[in-house]
Amino acid sequence: MSPPSAVEVEAVDDTTGVTIPDPFSLPIKANEIHGRRRKTDKSQWMLAAPAYSSSFKSNSSLKSKPKAKRWDHRLTLESHSRKFNSIKQAARFLGKPGIISLGGGLPSAEYFPFEDLSMTVPSIGAFSEHETAESGVVIRAGKHDLREEKSIADISTLFNYGQAMGSAQLLRWITEHTELVHAPPYADWSCNMSIGSTSALEMAFRMFCERGDYIISEEYTFASAVETAKPLGINVVGIKMDAQGLLPEDLDTVLREWNPAERGAKKPFVLYTVPTGQNPTGATQGGQRRRAIYRVCQKHDLYILEDEPYYFLQMQPYTGANQPDVPPPKNHEEFLKALVPSYLRLDVDGRVMRMDSFSKVVAPGTRVGWITASEQITERYRMHADTSTQGPNGVSQLILFKLLDEHWGHSGYLDWLIHIRLEYTKRRDVILDACEKYLPRDVVSWQPPMAGMFHWLRIAYEKHPHYPQKSIPEIEEEIFMESIEQGALVMRGSWFYAQNDVEHDTLFFRATYAAAPFEQIQEGIRRFGDAVRISFGLELESREANGTNGNKA
Amino acid sequence: MSPPSAVEVEAVDDTTGVTIPDPFSLPIKANEIHGRRRKTDKSQWMLAAPAYSSSFKSNSSLKSKPKAKRWDHRLTLESHSRKFNSIKQAARFLGKPGIISLGGGLPSAEYFPFEDLSMTVPSIGAFSEHETAESGVVIRAGKHDLREEKSIADISTLFNYGQAMGSAQLLRWITEHTELVHAPPYADWSCNMSIGSTSALEMAFRMFCERGDYIISEEYTFASAVETAKPLGINVVGIKMDAQGLLPEDLDTVLREWNPAERGAKKPFVLYTVPTGQNPTGATQGGQRRRAIYRVCQKHDLYILEDEPYYFLQMQPYTGANQPDVPPPKNHEEFLKALVPSYLRLDVDGRVMRMDSFSKVVAPGTRVGWITASEQITERYRMHADTSTQGPNGVSQLILFKLLDEHWGHSGYLDWLIHIRLEYTKRRDVILDACEKYLPRDVVSWQPPMAGMFHWLRIAYEKHPHYPQKSIPEIEEEIFMESIEQGALVMRGSWFYAQNDVEHDTLFFRATYAAAPFEQIQEGIRRFGDAVRISFGLELESREANGTNGNKA
Repeated sequence: MSPPSAVEVEAVDDTTGVTIPDPFSLPIKANEIHGRRRKTDKSQWMLAAPAYSSSFKSNSSLKSKPKAKRWDHRLTLESHSRKFNSIKQAARFLGKPGIISLGGGLPSAEYFPFEDLSMTVPSIGAFSEHETAESGVVIRAGKHDLREEKSIADISTLFNYGQAMGSAQLLRWITEHTELVHAPPYADWSCNMSIGSTSALEMAFRMFCERGDYIISEEYTFASAVETAKPLGINVVGIKMDAQGLLPEDLDTVLREWNPAERGAKKPFVLYTVPTGQNPTGATQGGQRRRAIYRVCQKHDLYILEDEPYYFLQMQPYTGANQPDVPPPKNHEEFLKALVPSYLRLDVDGRVMRMDSFSKVVAPGTRVGWITASEQITERYRMHADTSTQGPNGVSQLILFKLLDEHWGHSGYLDWLIHIRLEYTKRRDVILDACEKYLPRDVVSWQPPMAGMFHWLRIAYEKHPHYPQKSIPEIEEEIFMESIEQGALVMRGSWFYAQNDVEHDTLFFRATYAAAPFEQIQEGIRRFGDAVRISFGLELESREANGTNGNKA
Repeated sequence: MSPPSAVEVEAVDDTTGVTIPDPFSLPIKANEIHGRRRKTDKSQWMLAAPAYSSSFKSNSSLKSKPKAKRWDHRLTLESHSRKFNSIKQAARFLGKPGIISLGGGLPSAEYFPFEDLSMTVPSIGAFSEHETAESGVVIRAGKHDLREEKSIADISTLFNYGQAMGSAQLLRWITEHTELVHAPPYADWSCNMSIGSTSALEMAFRMFCERGDYIISEEYTFASAVETAKPLGINVVGIKMDAQGLLPEDLDTVLREWNPAERGAKKPFVLYTVPTGQNPTGATQGGQRRRAIYRVCQKHDLYILEDEPYYFLQMQPYTGANQPDVPPPKNHEEFLKALVPSYLRLDVDGRVMRMDSFSKVVAPGTRVGWITASEQITERYRMHADTSTQGPNGVSQLILFKLLDEHWGHSGYLDWLIHIRLEYTKRRDVILDACEKYLPRDVVSWQPPMAGMFHWLRIAYEKHPHYPQKSIPEIEEEIFMESIEQGALVMRGSWFYAQNDVEHDTLFFRATYAAAPFEQIQEGIRRFGDAVRISFGLELESREANGTNGNKA
């Protein structure tokens, strides 16, 4: 990992001549969406009806925009050979007026033992747990609300079988939200629900990669992505990073110099990246950086898997300990403009499959997410889901629909996201203040994270009294075990290597500020600081400064 | 498909010398389970804690029973190469008293916008929709019930990330239920939740089958199973059936005569079967039949994928139109003894992976099911799930736990299953009565289904006035389109061929009695009967008999 660079990379050779859109021109506003909802076809709300994003996109997105590139040359044998399900195609006859179906083996809702489902959720603007307990609103879904025309979603419909794209009810909201935030610049984009991005990523690998292929990722990456790839026989090549994450020059170099004979594999064409609040480094690629990387992807005809669970965990700028905060966004437009543009927003070619998730902004246990990509790709995805995951569970779809569409609406959800932004800002500030206070600055360094859940702590192993007699992995092990001994669990950087088969000359630990209460974050960092000091043979300043008697639990 | 045979097959060569257990000796009773629950470890209810069936099995199942066979020689390269996740292993340090975790990237429940979740569900014994509206009970899950010691399950825990095996809370119930109903006869069986059997089946294929392999199934089979297998390069060989489904002699013959050179593939070792209320034929293998098939599987060392969504849709015996019903089961023991023993119950070797589902007995939209197999197999499964589907969604797990464990308990759930049994019996009787009334018996024949959702109607194509000028597929197409024209959708038997590449000398249609209201089932069958008569050039008796003026919608 290179030292942080303040200079944006601009000098990448653009051989395509395609202009990548400038950041922000909001196509629609949150409160303008209801106007165009009236046109939609009512039959799509019915039991197990198919649904398509195209029904929910604004007309402006269809006009005059280019169509996505085709990826036939990149699809695996497995993905190519997927066929439409003959039985589901029989559903087309259900449109005949008065027809009686003795066809599909769907159980009758009569035997679902749920009469209704209610939940207490926050009112718009009063989002905290405390406020919800005081002023929360009860929202209720009945069993037959659709038939009784009380709602377009109910238990009898959403608790039954659904389609691999998810229900029209929630897919509408997801499509509108995606257009509101990302406004993809090509015509035939579409959304398809996933059962979470871990599954979506595995399905993408099976769509694009044969055994023996390489994919590309950041040199430190989400460990689960590597563990997903490896058993499929897919290798990972890691690209150097700086404080803004993946370096486009190194990406270009690796691809230009790729020697299939030497590598024993063809030139890779899939880039897996977490552009915002990357796991584990916390790095966020800026807008210019993303455009530079996209140009390299165009040059080498890469397909981009954009994994973005932390997109809405972008935070306010860090002002330093005890400094006044930056005022929060004044309105939705200011909030949206403060977000780094996604690859999806820059994707003039349709070479991005973006993975979104409700896990970090609503709740992980819903197991509902979505992908956005060109129709060709979402269709392949859907056909795979049909014979594996199916669509996401209808129970979560129902509660998400009731909360996000009927209760909050797009506007209320943006308010919620601003709330989350400010909450994570507080958490990030707590860990940074603790690091400044408790860590030995001469051997531990860091960048303030701009997004996500992770703080990435660099250890100057070269200053360790036993280096190089002790290797980097041994020093990492020593600090890790001492930290456990002191009573703080942090993650070892080596667990996140994209490649275990190359030498690394860096030593990091990952600490998360997402989960623990504030005082535990502070105490955890203090304990970790002591562990580093003990390993490096430094004085235990923090312990003395606080006058406590040992940190052991 | 051979004509129905009343004679059970017993003469299969048993080369193994292993005795397959007799049907029923109930190991535990529903109301005895609570006694042994006290021992369990409280830490397993905590956030993202791992859970294992072994904590919830009765001691009697561990003593003196043999361990399952190992399947190393059958696992694919993909499955063999799965490794434990280093990061999840860090969780072992969380056991240290007082440790502060800055490790896992789990969001704080503070940001889950749900204060509570309530639902109205049936009281035990008052299960109908009507009764639930009148006497239903409201059950509620709070956000912090676990911390507040109100319940072992709450929103803050189950709406967060979980483990690939599912939560301990629901896994306990599932393990106990499995032991209560199936009592697997080997020591190291275990349950692992799935996100539904469609996904579990795909994962099993990827565990056992390489591209080019064959699996074995019934000659008419669940179309989605074939569609799952095909893109993975897996071929299906269909085995002849009679009224009790798969024929063990034909299974033995196909395996004995398998010629790898001729077939271009090694001898198959995976049997995929739906033993109860098979889709599409509705056939149910009797106990003797299952034992005969199991012996053939032992002889050829097959692994059995037992797909059992319809197991609890076993019905009361059919007594004929306007005949008195058989009295319902008097108690739980009588109910359980009336069920055909599962392969899991016969599985002395640990050669069965059983797939169970809540889809037909609670609601498909929960997307929660489970597999039961030996530890070696559930471990492989779990490691795959870790990097793909993950465990099932926590929202459904929570509502299932509240309903099945806290509210109904095992005993109340068995009452619910008896209710479902009687309801499906009524539905089955409605379609059989309609068939007797409206179908031309000289060209349509059937067996009364004993289980499941499907009625399988055989057409005597050889009596068709245009046969053999018109081929079987052409006659099938003609009847299908005429039925649509008459206003009834039924499924074409050819959609369910295990093999499309062999000639079939049978013609069937599949009608379901699971979904439509009673009068629509009757009217649908009447319309289908007219379609058959029109195709065969018979008089439209039923129309005249009823004096109605055409059936067109």
